Order: sequence, then C-alpha cells, then structure tokens
Amino acid sequence: MASFVLRYHPLNLHLRHTFTISRWSRDIAANVLVELEADGIIGYGEASPNQRYNESQESCMQWLSSFNTADIKNPFDVEALLRVMDATGPGNYSAKVALEMALYDWIGKKLEIPLYELWNAPSNTGPQTCFTVGIDKTENLPDRVREAEPYPILKIKLGTDRDREIITTIRSVTDKPLWIDANEGWKDLETAKSHIRFLADQNVQMIEQPMPAGMKSELAALKSYSPIVTMADESFTGRESIDELAACFHGINLKLMKTGSLRRAMQLIHRGRKAGLHIMIGCMIESSLANSAAALISLWCDYADLDGHLLIRDDPYKGLAFNEQNHVYMPDMPGLGVTLR
Amino acid sequence: MASFVLRYHPLNLHLRHTFTISRWSRDIAANVLVELEADGIIGYGEASPNQRYNESQESCMQWLSSFNTADIKNPFDVEALLRVMDATGPGNYSAKVALEMALYDWIGKKLEIPLYELWNAPSNTGPQTCFTVGIDKTENLPDRVREAEPYPILKIKLGTDRDREIITTIRSVTDKPLWIDANEGWKDLETAKSHIRFLADQNVQMIEQPMPAGMKSELAALKSYSPIVTMADESFTGRESIDELAACFHGINLKLMKTGSLRRAMQLIHRGRKAGLHIMIGCMIESSLANSAAALISLWCDYADLDGHLLIRDDPYKGLAFNEQNHVYMPDMPGLGVTLR
Repeated sequence: MASFVLRYHPLNLHLRHTFTISRWSRDIAANVLVELEADGIIGYGEASPNQRYNESQESCMQWLSSFNTADIKNPFDVEALLRVMDATGPGNYSAKVALEMALYDWIGKKLEIPLYELWNAPSNTGPQTCFTVGIDKTENLPDRVREAEPYPILKIKLGTDRDREIITTIRSVTDKPLWIDANEGWKDLETAKSHIRFLADQNVQMIEQPMPAGMKSELAALKSYSPIVTMADESFTGRESIDELAACFHGINLKLMKTGSLRRAMQLIHRGRKAGLHIMIGCMIESSLANSAAALISLWCDYADLDGHLLIRDDPYKGLAFNEQNHVYMPDMPGLGVTLR
Repeated sequence: MASFVLRYHPLNLHLRHTFTISRWSRDIAANVLVELEADGIIGYGEASPNQRYNESQESCMQWLSSFNTADIKNPFDVEALLRVMDATGPGNYSAKVALEMALYDWIGKKLEIPLYELWNAPSNTGPQTCFTVGIDKTENLPDRVREAEPYPILKIKLGTDRDREIITTIRSVTDKPLWIDANEGWKDLETAKSHIRFLADQNVQMIEQPMPAGMKSELAALKSYSPIVTMADESFTGRESIDELAACFHGINLKLMKTGSLRRAMQLIHRGRKAGLHIMIGCMIESSLANSAAALISLWCDYADLDGHLLIRDDPYKGLAFNEQNHVYMPDMPGLGVTLR
C-alpha cells in the first residue's frame, strides 16, 4: 500500500476588515496547511485553530509533528485513521480534520473522481449561502449592507446591547431574508423571547445559539416558544447527544474545525436527519481549501454559511464556487477540487 | 485502468411458502446473478426482475448481454456507468442495479473496505426490521403469526375484502407493532379512511400504498387525514417528483429493483430527507446478495423490510445479519460483505 509523507506549514490569512463578534476582534487568521503525499499525488488539508478550544497555530503544528504516517495502513480506510487520531486524546480537532481532509483529497485524486461522486452526493450543488455582516458601529451598517449587495441572504451577528437598533438600521436599507447569530449573547429566557418576538416580523429565517450553551432548560423552553428555527452552534461540537440537542434546538450548525472530521460530520448529518433536525454547515475564517471541504458537506445540508474565504484578501486557493442565486457548488475535479489560485 | 469481464447466470430461488399479495401468487423467484471481474477481484450483483415493469429473467440477461464492459473507463466513477446504462433507454432497472451492485462490490473489495465505510455510513447497524405475513386463509393466520415469533414487528398484507378479519385474527394472537401493506387495495378515499380509523387503535406504525398510485388527490387528502404514517410504494419508483410525493405521503419506500441504482437510492434518500419524508427500504424476493445491498442502504433509513431472503429455502449467500432486537447489520468485510453460504 501507499507510503505517505506529511508536511505542514503556517497559513496566515489576512482579513479584508477587522472582524468582530460578541467575544473577540481579529484581523488575521493563523491557519495551518497540511500536505499528505504518496504515489506522486498530494492531498491538501487546512486547519483553522480555535482559541475557544485552546488551539493555536503552534499547538496544531505540534500535534501534526507527532503523527506517524506509518499508521496509515490502508489509505481508503478513513475510519482507521480516525481511530489512530482519537487515540491521541481529545482536542486538536482542527489539526485532526486537516489531516483527514488531506487524506480524503488524496483518495479522490487517487481514484480520479470528485469526493462528492465517491460519496453519492445528491448533486454537486448545495444550499443558498449567506454573507455575514459583522458587528459594527450603527452608522457603518448601511455601507456594510451595500457591500453585501450580491448576496441574497445576510447573516447578522447580534448579542449586543443594541440588537434592535442593528436590525432596524439594516431593515432601513434592505428587505433580504436574514439569519441571526446571537453567539450566546442573550443571557436569560425573557430577553431571548422578547428579541424573538421582535424578530418574528422581520423576515428572519433562523437564529443561531440564542442563549449560552449551558442554559439547556431555557433553550428547550425557547425551542417550543420560537416561531423562528433555532440552531445549535456553541452548543454543538459534534460530541453531544443528538437527542439532547433535538430537545433544545430545531437544528444544528456543523463546523468541521469543531467536529474534527468530515466523516463524523457526515455521520452526524444522517443521525440528525433521523432525529428531524435541520442541518446547517458553517465555517471559521479559512481559505477556499478548508471551505471547499465544508462546501462538500453542504451538499447534504439545509443551510450553508460558507463565506469564510470571502472575508480574507489573500486566499491562495480556488475551489468551491457560487451560482447566480448564491447556491454553493463543487468543481468537477478529483478530490476536494481545490487548486492554487 | 482495470479491464472487466462480465458474467451472468439464472439464479432460481425457491420459496418456503407460496407467496400471495393482492396481485399474484408465486413459489419461485427467477433472479439473475451478475459477476464483474477485474484484477483478480469479482464483484457480485443480483437482479430480481419485476413483471410489473415488463421484466423477466430472459429480458434481464438479454440486456446484460448487450452491455460492453469497455464502457467502464474508470471503475470508481459509478456516475459514468449510470450514464452509459441510462443511454440504453428506460426500463431494465433490475438488470441495471445488478450491474452497478457488482461494480460497487468490486470497488469495496479493490479498496479493501466495506462499502458502508466508503460511504461514511452513520454506523454498521440499520433500523429494526419487520417480517412479512402474506395473505392467507383466516384459519391459517395464527400459525403464520406463531412462525414469526422471533420477529418483533410484523408486516401484514391487506387490500382484501376481509381486511378487518385479518387484523382482528392477528390481534387475537399478538400485540406486536404492525406495518400494513395495502398494495393499492383500497379503491376509494372513504374506504381508506374507514380502514385507517379502524387501524389507528391497533398499534399500527405505518401503512404502505393505501390506494392506487393514480389517485394522487385522494392520497394527498388521506395524508392529512391519517394519524398513521403513509408510505409511497407503487407510487414510487425513484423517477417521480419528490415534492409531489411529499404532498401525497409521509414517506417513501425505496426498492433497489425499481430505482435501478444504489447511487440513485442514496441520492433519493438525501432529497427525501430535505423534504421531510420518512425513508423506508424494501426488497423483492431475492437472496442475501441483493438484500445485503438493500441492507447497506437501510443504514440511512427509518424503516427496513428486508426479509426477502428469509422467504426462500435455498439462499446461496450470506451477508446482512440481524441482532437480538432484529436490527439489520452489515458484516465487517470488504464490498457488500457477501460470501457463499
């Protein structure tokens, strides 16, 4: 069987605008590029380390340095790779998914078919995707909305002390459907209910993580109350009980950097579907490489938030693309379909 | 790339009991075995030709005789095989799925992994499966129910002029959950509603094809009326509009011999999920070979009716298996995991 060489490098991506959500601001994404080579074929993967989970570019590369490629006995047996990675303990999910992504990319290239073909995807085209408007000064919001003119759905970050002002300002310049990401910003049930009552008349299609992940009984109460679909984001890494999530939310937002595996993400989608959950795929700030892996997963999802690569000004790759209605689609190329720009 | 040799033979399977549904009786299944060989590896497939769709053992072998294996350029590109088969025109679905099944079995064996691993199945274990009690004289039914003692769910064929007598007789000897297959037997909406009112108190979990496939508006009315899940069977071959099916039924019953493709079946499951449909996998009278392919698909389904191989007394193969609660599971073996008994 194939003998693999593993390489990894820092991949520092520069943001177009300083990006602010309720927890932090930043203007660089310190990611990691992974290359897995065998038989003259290179598979590519990308990690976007998440400080919320105690990950950094350094910790990511350190974890990769400890991986022994001789542990890949049969490269097509990705479950075996997951067992090897699981045995290194919990955490390091962005490094783990980058390595698995590189192996899947290699598999597709080796077999000379796109991964969406190998996985029997319903089509090469996923859901309509949103464009995120970050938290900004109220007077700047109309310009931010105008910059998003090509995008049919806007995702608005809330969880501030001026949420209604933000929505009212946005509604003064556009009537596009909105997705809301509260990022755990509403701290009690009455506040969340009051915001949702306000949002229910504002063409809002979904609300991510209205309250903190720890407030399970309040989230369950909010699910029954809310006429708008609520989605688990901070409440969902991929390692929680699907039944418990279904009690608290209408859906789940998968992110590969949290789940730590494309294969586990696919399995979670199927388990979530059986539990009647809506399925969303999200991303971190990452290049078209990792975001093409997310776009691949989106082919099985109801909602897709895949603008991470649009927020950076030096994306080295091209892969996922968007049609006129902003539905994401995968290139007809082997593996993930990603090439250097 | 691999150069394939195609072989096919009659596979005549003998039934334990003469099998009767509302349309016909039979005591032999005249199936076809397909072998696809390359690189010293043989992939196996099975066709169960369906007379409802003008198929026979002969027509099936005739179609196979016209297939040119040189058309398999890249064996991992199953979509390309489907395009070649589609180009032969509509029909011959059991022959087509047998050939595709053999190619998928070959792919799994070539890559040395089970197909459920290659396809990122949520697990190797599917839904709890039923055992079918065919239409029989009322006085024989208690014995038929006792013969089904190991099975936790019974599927009852109705659509006769003594449906309530059948259910009452079965309920006099067991309180197991029942699935009903009316096989288009209720010919008008009032009859269907009346039967469903009766069945609603009888621990019936689902009803397949309550009325003829052509009665779309009545089926839609019945969907809103019925407290029991209704499933499309004769209404669903895999080539209908999913939205139209979702208007008429709560779910769909996939059968590989009708759909003509495992890959299309997987795609239909994902499209059906997005439309909120329950998903069932069924089978024809077939050996453990074709039924293992159905069991593979069942890993993504809510309901599974996979007793086709249990109804024959000379099953040459072993593959799919059942645990103590009669959940179907796949063997941990490459490809479909089927071997000679």
